[in-house]
Amino acid sequence: MLGPQVWSSVRQGLSRSLFRNVRGWASGEGKKVDIAGIYPPVTTPFTATAEVDYGKLEENLHKLGTFPFRGFVVQGSNGEFPFLTSSERLEVVSRVRQAMPKNKLLLAGSGCESTQATVEMTVSMAQVGADVAMVVTPCYYRGRMSSAALIHHYTKVADLSPIPVVLYSVPANTGLDLPVDAVVTLSQHPNIVGMKDSGGDVTRIGLIVHKTRKQDFQVLAGSAGFLMASYALGAVGGVCALANVLGAQVCQLERLCLTGQWEDAQKLQHRLIEPNTAVTRRFGIPGLKKMMEWFGYYGGPCRAPLQELSPAEEEALRMDFTSNGWL
Amino acid sequence: MLGPQVWSSVRQGLSRSLFRNVRGWASGEGKKVDIAGIYPPVTTPFTATAEVDYGKLEENLHKLGTFPFRGFVVQGSNGEFPFLTSSERLEVVSRVRQAMPKNKLLLAGSGCESTQATVEMTVSMAQVGADVAMVVTPCYYRGRMSSAALIHHYTKVADLSPIPVVLYSVPANTGLDLPVDAVVTLSQHPNIVGMKDSGGDVTRIGLIVHKTRKQDFQVLAGSAGFLMASYALGAVGGVCALANVLGAQVCQLERLCLTGQWEDAQKLQHRLIEPNTAVTRRFGIPGLKKMMEWFGYYGGPCRAPLQELSPAEEEALRMDFTSNGWL
Amino acid sequence: MLGPQVWSSVRQGLSRSLFRNVRGWASGEGKKVDIAGIYPPVTTPFTATAEVDYGKLEENLHKLGTFPFRGFVVQGSNGEFPFLTSSERLEVVSRVRQAMPKNKLLLAGSGCESTQATVEMTVSMAQVGADVAMVVTPCYYRGRMSSAALIHHYTKVADLSPIPVVLYSVPANTGLDLPVDAVVTLSQHPNIVGMKDSGGDVTRIGLIVHKTRKQDFQVLAGSAGFLMASYALGAVGGVCALANVLGAQVCQLERLCLTGQWEDAQKLQHRLIEPNTAVTRRFGIPGLKKMMEWFGYYGGPCRAPLQELSPAEEEALRMDFTSNGWL
Amino acid sequence: MLGPQVWSSVRQGLSRSLFRNVRGWASGEGKKVDIAGIYPPVTTPFTATAEVDYGKLEENLHKLGTFPFRGFVVQGSNGEFPFLTSSERLEVVSRVRQAMPKNKLLLAGSGCESTQATVEMTVSMAQVGADVAMVVTPCYYRGRMSSAALIHHYTKVADLSPIPVVLYSVPANTGLDLPVDAVVTLSQHPNIVGMKDSGGDVTRIGLIVHKTRKQDFQVLAGSAGFLMASYALGAVGGVCALANVLGAQVCQLERLCLTGQWEDAQKLQHRLIEPNTAVTRRFGIPGLKKMMEWFGYYGGPCRAPLQELSPAEEEALRMDFTSNGWL
Repeated sequence: MLGPQVWSSVRQGLSRSLFRNVRGWASGEGKKVDIAGIYPPVTTPFTATAEVDYGKLEENLHKLGTFPFRGFVVQGSNGEFPFLTSSERLEVVSRVRQAMPKNKLLLAGSGCESTQATVEMTVSMAQVGADVAMVVTPCYYRGRMSSAALIHHYTKVADLSPIPVVLYSVPANTGLDLPVDAVVTLSQHPNIVGMKDSGGDVTRIGLIVHKTRKQDFQVLAGSAGFLMASYALGAVGGVCALANVLGAQVCQLERLCLTGQWEDAQKLQHRLIEPNTAVTRRFGIPGLKKMMEWFGYYGGPCRAPLQELSPAEEEALRMDFTSNGWL
Repeated sequence: MLGPQVWSSVRQGLSRSLFRNVRGWASGEGKKVDIAGIYPPVTTPFTATAEVDYGKLEENLHKLGTFPFRGFVVQGSNGEFPFLTSSERLEVVSRVRQAMPKNKLLLAGSGCESTQATVEMTVSMAQVGADVAMVVTPCYYRGRMSSAALIHHYTKVADLSPIPVVLYSVPANTGLDLPVDAVVTLSQHPNIVGMKDSGGDVTRIGLIVHKTRKQDFQVLAGSAGFLMASYALGAVGGVCALANVLGAQVCQLERLCLTGQWEDAQKLQHRLIEPNTAVTRRFGIPGLKKMMEWFGYYGGPCRAPLQELSPAEEEALRMDFTSNGWL
Repeated sequence: MLGPQVWSSVRQGLSRSLFRNVRGWASGEGKKVDIAGIYPPVTTPFTATAEVDYGKLEENLHKLGTFPFRGFVVQGSNGEFPFLTSSERLEVVSRVRQAMPKNKLLLAGSGCESTQATVEMTVSMAQVGADVAMVVTPCYYRGRMSSAALIHHYTKVADLSPIPVVLYSVPANTGLDLPVDAVVTLSQHPNIVGMKDSGGDVTRIGLIVHKTRKQDFQVLAGSAGFLMASYALGAVGGVCALANVLGAQVCQLERLCLTGQWEDAQKLQHRLIEPNTAVTRRFGIPGLKKMMEWFGYYGGPCRAPLQELSPAEEEALRMDFTSNGWL
Repeated sequence: MLGPQVWSSVRQGLSRSLFRNVRGWASGEGKKVDIAGIYPPVTTPFTATAEVDYGKLEENLHKLGTFPFRGFVVQGSNGEFPFLTSSERLEVVSRVRQAMPKNKLLLAGSGCESTQATVEMTVSMAQVGADVAMVVTPCYYRGRMSSAALIHHYTKVADLSPIPVVLYSVPANTGLDLPVDAVVTLSQHPNIVGMKDSGGDVTRIGLIVHKTRKQDFQVLAGSAGFLMASYALGAVGGVCALANVLGAQVCQLERLCLTGQWEDAQKLQHRLIEPNTAVTRRFGIPGLKKMMEWFGYYGGPCRAPLQELSPAEEEALRMDFTSNGWL
């Protein structure tokens, strides 16, 4: 591990090259990067022997690159990041950086359990091309993850990160909601630009938007299931697993919301709820990967202990898409 | 208890007088009552010795009658109905019927733990003037409240009720979410016209609206905290504790949503979230009654075991209103 | 409702007749009633048309009367008390009083949601023959049921009850654990003699026994599943649904624990866990009543909305008994 | 990553040296290692700059070595293992192996999120001296961690582990209870010798002991709070954070249980509940390390994001020990 002094110089050294030209970001002027838009949280393809299949990863990205996404999230919960080694995590970021269109943003999930490991991973991901670090709440010791502890954690990470930081709260995986008071405090940090909230409580999203309105803090919905409601409450975009298979439709929903066509948005949103639930809460990544295959992408196996779907689960998954007219 | 035959004739006897002329309802043509709009869930005022204070109840109603509410809910969770005797429950409905404007709807909470008691209470409330019965999920045996059990319960109640039935799901009190599949099945019953959902999961609300779209099933948001999002997803109104103190503002939010002024709606919604949380989840009915006093209504004590707020709680309650510009 | 003065005189008037000669209780000397032992929580038999079948109730009691129980609990959670009218609740207590052996204790569940209703029910149950009132935590407004509120509630009930009070915590039904600090405070009340804890956390039971050791406070396990462990930690008995069907075995387990035959106790306890779970958490009262029929008692239907078991559930229920050698 | 063939030969190669002479274990005869007894889950000491302090680790072990423990657990939840790098994890095991008495068992927590990483860590820990691998449930994708997935995971790990495996269920950290049916299935694996259950549900522990009685499956209580009850139900020992500070007392409690002195055991158990809760659920590892300092061990800081106790927390922690006579 590197000591504080080293981090400081690393950060200075990195800042020139890393604070690259992203939309809305003007280095040195304090203006924050604009993260508004839709992002698919990219899955990590594996071979039959559970090696990362970088070729398939690039193929998927090329297909996904045709949609008007704001960028890509790698190593969100759908990226099976807890199953990757540190070097795999960095290699995935590096490959995605190369394969994706230059004008899009690369948000990389750099969260680890310890603050120090998170800092190191964040710096390393910045070095291999991440534009923004998306940092999940540490959770194994959730009983001690008070607002104070989480504020300390994120402040340290944001202080030492050469790239902007997005908070990431995903209680279905972590058993932990990043408290609103912690979010409000952290929104004042110059290097924290927003939050991805996957909890699905739009009252909470509205409150966060409201209480951070003076900080230009940007909230992304963590799922397509409550994307429209999040836009209505002031979110600026979404990280949507469903966009891996219904990319056009999720982007269409974004457009309808942004242009105030709420009736059409509602109809489209309605038809996306069941498919979205199917590839997130109900069948998880195995469901998402199976569905990707049906939509012409490479899905492939998950790493163990995640198991592939049973035939009955596959049938139910398919039904959630066909009954809404998507298959 | 009355037997099935008696119920049948009671129902026929009641149907002429009870299926009164409510907006959008045409007896015999199968058109359902239109429940769209905003409702304050009326509190039950008590004297210092914990008797129901019917005079204060009427005074409150006269003040509330000046707002463009669609009607009033009595004996929702905010009405302290579990603390009332059966005769008090009926007397409250009767008094509210007389005190309220004739052109408004009276939704009466008639839920009890047993199906039979719920049927009896529903019929009796219809007799004393309720337009619609709002029936909370039974919950003490929640471990056995499967979809099948709940479908059986509500079907029986709706079969025997002389007035339309609204389902009521309020997991913060009952520990039970009325399952979506049960709602979809029940939406097909000719005497079940809608649902009040207080859970706050707007993805679920959207799904319910979507899956019942052929049944003309009407969903009401159970709280002002997610009212705008619920409108966005297809709800037709809300039962909002906050409307007891900020009636004009909640009706204004309704109007903004119905007329598609989403930006203004968002700003207003944002400012209502904290006050709403304060008088619902955070400080409950004691908080709501205290706030009613500050806004010129009669609040008064709750029945025990509900305790009045501590001075620190009062201070926090007030802050949630002042910091948003409402006091 | 009666006013405070009336309650006071009612209580004095009742005290002579009601503070009857129960084991270990000497009126005026402050010695508390000894509630140590095993109690079946009696089910409420219903006819095919859902009327209370008092004849079957008496028959069941006569059969249960042959086991060395300390007494009977009526209107615990297994008694379907939320489905009974007030007069049915009293009539059941009255009939059980008459049908049961004179030397046994009658613990009657008198809890209601409001403090006042609980007081009235407690007094009335005392008048019709209850020896001890078992008072479940109010729960509909659980978000406001702080220790202070619960202490206030139970203190009022115990102050005005002519018979000793037993606290009753059953989180599976109420969603609420009576907090340890509230129990410790309440244990000092001269008319509160103990607690029935159905939560199954024996660490908590041990802590309660430890922190109330100076108050002669008696803890009853609320289920046969953790009866032996509760004895090990200092409980003095149990209220066990399973005793309605395996009365001899539960009493045998008590005897083994009391005489320090821990190895045999362990073997017996092991064989009771699955059957116990089956008639409590897994299949609830419908399972218990079905099993009663297989053991020669009257089970009969539950009141709606409780549904009878499906054939598959019946099969699983039977298996939990046969695989442990009880059928 | 190594392929299956490599693992196979690695395992054979390791078996001679690694299946060392542990009590009750006779290599080749299929008799399982005897893990009965008490284990402190050793904390990982850090310097002021958050480096692992191996010197202090050895000092603590020398002090702990004076108690009649069966052995030591390293990298249980109290070892801050999620904050250690892979090489730190192995170095800690190696150092503990060297510092601890030869006749004691070394249980090493080798769980990772992926099956493959867990296998590799388990093999590596065996190579540096672990006697037994204690494998926590993977948990980040808990929504998909069905019994089937967990059985697959543990079977693979046990197949490829050169040392016996102990299952480890700790829902407070993982949000996941290893299901009883999965435990029963896994108990039949020749290389799975037992389970550490930290959930605190002794009914569950009794059921597991009962249903695995033909497999010589050994259950360890995961906390001193329910140690006596676990012995009563058939557990053979415990992994107790409290043993890091009250080692003599926890071993005394073991002795009292094993020799059937249940009354004295109860008294001692009672006095250990509050201190135990304080250094586990209430104040976590920061509380445990603070208390270690008061008892003459090296505690030191935790790695971030774990924060040290506030003065008020320290005071409450101390009170939980003084009020029970331990300080």
